Amino acid sequence: MKKRDVYLDNMPLSEAKKVFFKSLEAKNVALAGDEMIDVRKSLNRITAAPVFAKISSPHYHSAAMDGIAVASEQTIGADEKHPVTLKEGVHFKYVDTGDPLPDGCDTVIMIEEVHPVGDGEVEIISSYSPWNHVRSIGEDIVATELIVPENHRLRPQDLAAILAGGHTEVCVRVKPAVAIIPTGTELVSPGSLLKPGDIIEYNSAMLSGYIQEWGGNPVVLEKVIDDREKIRARIVQALNQADVIIVNAGSSAGSEDYTSDIIKDLGELVVHGVAIRPGKPVMLGFIENKPIIGIPGYPVSAALTMNLFVKPLIYQMQGIPIKPSQTLKANIARRIVSNLGVEEFLRVKLGRIGDKIVASPLSRGAGVITSVVRADGIVRIPALKEGLETGEEVEVELLREKSDIENTVVIIGSHDVTLDLLANEIKRHYPEMNISSAHVGSMGGIMALKRKEAHMAGMHLLDPDTGEYNVSYIKRFLPEQDIVLVNLVYRQQGLMIPKGNPKGIKGIEDLKRNDIIFVNRQRGAGTRLLLDLKLQQLKISPEDIKGYDREEYTHMAVAAEVASGSADAGLGILAAANALDLDFIPISPERYDLAIPKEFYDLESVQKVLKVIVTEPFKEKVMALGGYDTSKTGDAIFVKQTERS
Amino acid sequence: MKKRDVYLDNMPLSEAKKVFFKSLEAKNVALAGDEMIDVRKSLNRITAAPVFAKISSPHYHSAAMDGIAVASEQTIGADEKHPVTLKEGVHFKYVDTGDPLPDGCDTVIMIEEVHPVGDGEVEIISSYSPWNHVRSIGEDIVATELIVPENHRLRPQDLAAILAGGHTEVCVRVKPAVAIIPTGTELVSPGSLLKPGDIIEYNSAMLSGYIQEWGGNPVVLEKVIDDREKIRARIVQALNQADVIIVNAGSSAGSEDYTSDIIKDLGELVVHGVAIRPGKPVMLGFIENKPIIGIPGYPVSAALTMNLFVKPLIYQMQGIPIKPSQTLKANIARRIVSNLGVEEFLRVKLGRIGDKIVASPLSRGAGVITSVVRADGIVRIPALKEGLETGEEVEVELLREKSDIENTVVIIGSHDVTLDLLANEIKRHYPEMNISSAHVGSMGGIMALKRKEAHMAGMHLLDPDTGEYNVSYIKRFLPEQDIVLVNLVYRQQGLMIPKGNPKGIKGIEDLKRNDIIFVNRQRGAGTRLLLDLKLQQLKISPEDIKGYDREEYTHMAVAAEVASGSADAGLGILAAANALDLDFIPISPERYDLAIPKEFYDLESVQKVLKVIVTEPFKEKVMALGGYDTSKTGDAIFVKQTERS
Repeated sequence: MKKRDVYLDNMPLSEAKKVFFKSLEAKNVALAGDEMIDVRKSLNRITAAPVFAKISSPHYHSAAMDGIAVASEQTIGADEKHPVTLKEGVHFKYVDTGDPLPDGCDTVIMIEEVHPVGDGEVEIISSYSPWNHVRSIGEDIVATELIVPENHRLRPQDLAAILAGGHTEVCVRVKPAVAIIPTGTELVSPGSLLKPGDIIEYNSAMLSGYIQEWGGNPVVLEKVIDDREKIRARIVQALNQADVIIVNAGSSAGSEDYTSDIIKDLGELVVHGVAIRPGKPVMLGFIENKPIIGIPGYPVSAALTMNLFVKPLIYQMQGIPIKPSQTLKANIARRIVSNLGVEEFLRVKLGRIGDKIVASPLSRGAGVITSVVRADGIVRIPALKEGLETGEEVEVELLREKSDIENTVVIIGSHDVTLDLLANEIKRHYPEMNISSAHVGSMGGIMALKRKEAHMAGMHLLDPDTGEYNVSYIKRFLPEQDIVLVNLVYRQQGLMIPKGNPKGIKGIEDLKRNDIIFVNRQRGAGTRLLLDLKLQQLKISPEDIKGYDREEYTHMAVAAEVASGSADAGLGILAAANALDLDFIPISPERYDLAIPKEFYDLESVQKVLKVIVTEPFKEKVMALGGYDTSKTGDAIFVKQTERS
Repeated sequence: MKKRDVYLDNMPLSEAKKVFFKSLEAKNVALAGDEMIDVRKSLNRITAAPVFAKISSPHYHSAAMDGIAVASEQTIGADEKHPVTLKEGVHFKYVDTGDPLPDGCDTVIMIEEVHPVGDGEVEIISSYSPWNHVRSIGEDIVATELIVPENHRLRPQDLAAILAGGHTEVCVRVKPAVAIIPTGTELVSPGSLLKPGDIIEYNSAMLSGYIQEWGGNPVVLEKVIDDREKIRARIVQALNQADVIIVNAGSSAGSEDYTSDIIKDLGELVVHGVAIRPGKPVMLGFIENKPIIGIPGYPVSAALTMNLFVKPLIYQMQGIPIKPSQTLKANIARRIVSNLGVEEFLRVKLGRIGDKIVASPLSRGAGVITSVVRADGIVRIPALKEGLETGEEVEVELLREKSDIENTVVIIGSHDVTLDLLANEIKRHYPEMNISSAHVGSMGGIMALKRKEAHMAGMHLLDPDTGEYNVSYIKRFLPEQDIVLVNLVYRQQGLMIPKGNPKGIKGIEDLKRNDIIFVNRQRGAGTRLLLDLKLQQLKISPEDIKGYDREEYTHMAVAAEVASGSADAGLGILAAANALDLDFIPISPERYDLAIPKEFYDLESVQKVLKVIVTEPFKEKVMALGGYDTSKTGDAIFVKQTERS
C-alpha cells in the first residue's frame, strides 16, 4: 500500500466553486466555439448568434381561404336586394388557400359566400373591405426581424420559424468535447469474468451519460492502470482531443496522487479537497487553459461531483443557464447524524403520506450507486449542522417530477423478495405509478405506520402465545388507527446453507456448534423474532451462537453472506436461497401481510396495488420464486375499527 | 379551385381522443417491440423488461479504506496502555480501498490508526469489531435484486447500476418509427428561390423534432404534390417502413380530400374534424392496424394537433406516461372573443408584474408559427365559453419553466427595431433572462402601465403644445404612479418609399395625390399621432389620403407593405426602411423613451436591462441600423414622484 502523501483541502463548497469559476473567467475559456449546421439537424442545439429573418413569411400577399379574389371596390353597395355580378377572368379569379393574390385584387371572398349563376359568373350579396381573408406579406415574420436570440436552445417550433425566415443553416455552439479517463489497475470492462478485487468499469457510462444530457460531447478514453507515466500520457492525449478533461480516480490513493501531481506539473491545481460528503477528494484544475477535473472513484461521489462542478461548467461553455432544481418541503423519516464542517448530500425517497411528504434516507455509502438510482431527491445538510432530527422539515431538491412523488405508494417494513416483483408489475400496469419500499423489518413497519410515514407496511410477526401473525402486534402498537390487514403471501422460512451442506447442518440446534458461523437479521425483523422464539423453545442462549450479533437488513443480504462463505448459515426465505443457489432447511411456514391504515386504503394508488397483487401474472411470478403460497393473496385477513365517539 | 366536398365532423376534443385511443386498444397496437442493446448506448431509452442483477456488487468482501486487514479477535483488549503488536504477513496485510479482504481477516483498520514500530510490525491501541470498514458482498446490489423496472426511462445512474449488476446489454423498446409525408404542390424545399405562391416546406422539420423529443424515430419522406395517386403511393410506401404515418396536409382543400379518401379506401378513418381552434381538420385513422394521422397544413394547427394526438400515441407505444404540464394562474391582458362550440388554444406571453402574472395573447392566426416560438404558455378556452374578459383569471399550461417566467421583463408599447437588439443583448449578457415585448403603440403602453401589465413601456408621444415628448402624457394618464422616464434612443421618422422613388414623392403633401396609396399605423401609435399632427399643420384631411384606414402594428410591417408594392408610402423609422432597402424622406427626429414605474425600477431584472442599454456593443449595433442617436441612451429624462400623505 502506498501511504497517502497528499494533503487534501477541506474547502467549503461555495468557495471551491468560486475559486474554480473565477479561474475559468480569468482564463477566458467561457464559451465554446460555433459552427454553421443544417437547421433540420439543429434540434436542442444552442444558438451562438441571433437569427434574424432573411425573408418575410409569407413573402407574398396570400389567400387565407378558398374562394375568389376581387378588387374590393367592385363589391361596394352589394346587399341581398342589390347583388353584384362578377365575371371570372374579368372581375375575379378563383383562389385556393395559399395562392398569391392576383394583380389588381385586394380581397378574398370565401367560397361559401359566392353564388355561381352560370356562364362563369357569380353573385355576391355583401360588400367587402380590402384585405379581407388575405395573409399579407410578413403576417408571420417580417424580414430582418429577430426570430430567436443568441444562447437559445432550439425547439421544434424554432426550426420551423428559422426555415420560414429563409435560412437553411443556423449558427450554433460547438458541443464541448469532454474526455473521460477511467484510471485504476483494478478496473475491468463490463462483461469480464470477475476475480476478487476486480471492479467493473461502469462509471464512464454514467459520466458520459451526464455529459450527453448537459449538451456536451463525451469521449471515453481507454482505461489506464495506476502508473504515473501512463496516466500522464493519457492526459496529454486527452488535451489534444477535448475541451475539458475528466480523470475518474481509481479507488486507491495512488492513482489520485499521481493525477494531482500531473495536474500541478503540467498546469495548475486550484482545488483539491472540498468539504462535502460524498465527493471530498475532487480536484479542479487547468492545463493549457483547459479545465481538468478529478472525479472521485466511488460512484455516488462521482455522480455528485459531476453535478456540482461539471454541469455548471458545460452549461456555461454553451452560454445557457442551469434551470434551478425543483424543490419541496418534506419531513425526514429518521434521525441522521452528520459531521460538523462537512456539507452532506443525503439521498432520499419521497412519498406523500396524508398531508405531508416524507423523506426516507437511503444508504449514505459513497459506493452505493443504487442509492442514486432509487433517490427521488437530495437533502443538503449544511456544514454547520450536526444532523437532522426525526420529523424535521427539510428542503429536498427533486430528481423526479413532483407528479411522480404524488403517484408513489410507500411501503415500509419487512423485506420480501416479492416486493421487487410487485414494483415491476405496478410499473407494467400503471406506468405513471411508483413503489417506494424501505426494508426496516416488521416492527419498523409498524412504527412507520404509527408515525404516518408509509401507506402500508409488510410484516410477518408471530405471536408465540396465540400462534397467530400480526394481529396482536397491530392491536398493541397501533391502538388509535383503523387498519386493514391484507395477505400478500404465505412463505417458507428456513436455514440457508451452502450448496451441498458441507458442515452437515440439520436444524437450529446446530447453530450453537463451535464450527458454525451464523449471520443474523436486524432487531425488529420478523425473521429475527422467529429465530429468538425457536431459540427460546430449544433453550439455546444467543451468546452461544457465533455471529448472532452480525446483522443484515434483507433476506438477500443474508443469503449473499452465506454464498460468499463468510457465514455458514442464516435464517431466511426459500426464494432468497434459490436466488443464490443455496441449500435450504425448512423451519416454519409463515404468513406475510400488508397492513394498511383505513385512511389510505381507499386511495386510488393503494387500490391499484391491491388490484395488481391478485392478477395471475403476478401470482405466477411469485410462485416461480419457490416457497410461496398465493392462495390467500389479496384476502382481507382482519379489519381493525377503532370505536368512535 | 376544387370545391371542398368532404363533410368535416366537429367532434369535441375529449370524444375524438376517446374514439382514437379505443380503436388503438382494439387493434392491439399498444406497445412497440423490444431489442437488446449495449447498456452504454441506452441513455434515455425505455426498458421493455425489468432488469434484475446477475451478480452482486461488490462481488467480494472489499476494503472500504486504505489500511490493514486483520482478524478482529486479535485486537481484543487493545487500548492506549495495552497496545497490541501485529506482524505483517502473520497477523495483518496492508490493503488499499477496493482490495479483497484476505482469507482469515474480517476487519480493516484505517492506516491513520496504525503505528508502525519497525521490523514489519505495527501497534494498535483500540479493539475493533468485525466488518469494520469492510464493504461486504452485495452492499450495493445483491444478485437477483431488481435494479430498474419495466417502462423506465434510463438515466446515467441507471446505466452504471445495470453494468454493476453484471449486464452488458439491456432490453429496451424499439423507438416507434414515424413516417412524415409533406403534401402540397405549392411546397418548395428550404433554400429554393421563391416565387409568389411557393411555400417553404418547414413543417416536417418541426414535426420530426417533436417525434424525436417524444422518443420516436422520425422518417421524413419526399414531399408529394396534390395528386391522388401520388399521395396514395407515398402512403403505401410509408406503411412498409413505419409504425405510424403522418400526412401533413397541403394548404388546398384538394390534398386533404385525397388523404381522407385514401385512408377510407385502404383502412378506416375514425375521426375527421375536431372542434378545436386551430387544428380543426385533423384526421385520425388506421391502415393495416397502423395509426395514420392527417395533420393540418398551417404550422400552428400542425404543432397543436401533434401535441394533442401524436404525443400521447408515441408515449403509449413506449409504455410511458406523459408528464402532466406545469400550470399556473394568470390574468389575461385583454379581452378575447372566441367561438362557442370550439375549444380554443390561445398562445400567451407571460410575465410577473408585481404580485400577479399577466398573460398577453399572441397572434391567433393558424399560420403564425412565431406565435408558437414566442409563447410561454397555452390558455384553453373551453368550447362552452364565448371568450375571456380583460383581467380574467385563467389557467396557463406552461411551455417554459416557471423560473423563466419570473426572469422575464415585460415591455409593452411602441415598437422600435432596437427592442429586438435589446432582447438579444440581454440573452447574451444574462442567459437566464428573457424580454417579452408586445407592440401595441405608445398609448397602449401607457394603458398597460396603468393596468400594471408591464414593467416598462416604450413610447414617443409628441405633445404638440410643448414640443416635448412623453412627459405630459405620463402626467395626464398616469397621475397616481411614480414613473422614471429613461431615454432609449433618438431616431429619425420619415416617409418610407419604394427604391428610386418611382412616383416622385417629396413629402407629406404628396400623400393626398390620387395616385399615391398610403399605409398607416394603428390608432394610439406615436407614429400615427405624428402623422396626424403633420396633416393638421398642413391642413390635409385624413379622408383625402387613400389607405389612411389601413393599419399596421409595426414599422417593419409598414415597410413590408411598401416593399411589396401594395402601398406607395408609409411613415416610419429609417431603420425599417434600411432593413427592406427602401428610400426614405426624413420628416422629423424624435425621442423614444422607456417609462418605468418606480415600483419596478429597482427590480434586479429591470436594472439589468438598464445596464445593457448603456453598453458599447448595444449602442454600436443600434447605430449600425441607421437613423439612431444613442448619445442620451440610459439617461433619466424625467422622474415623476407623486405626493405622499
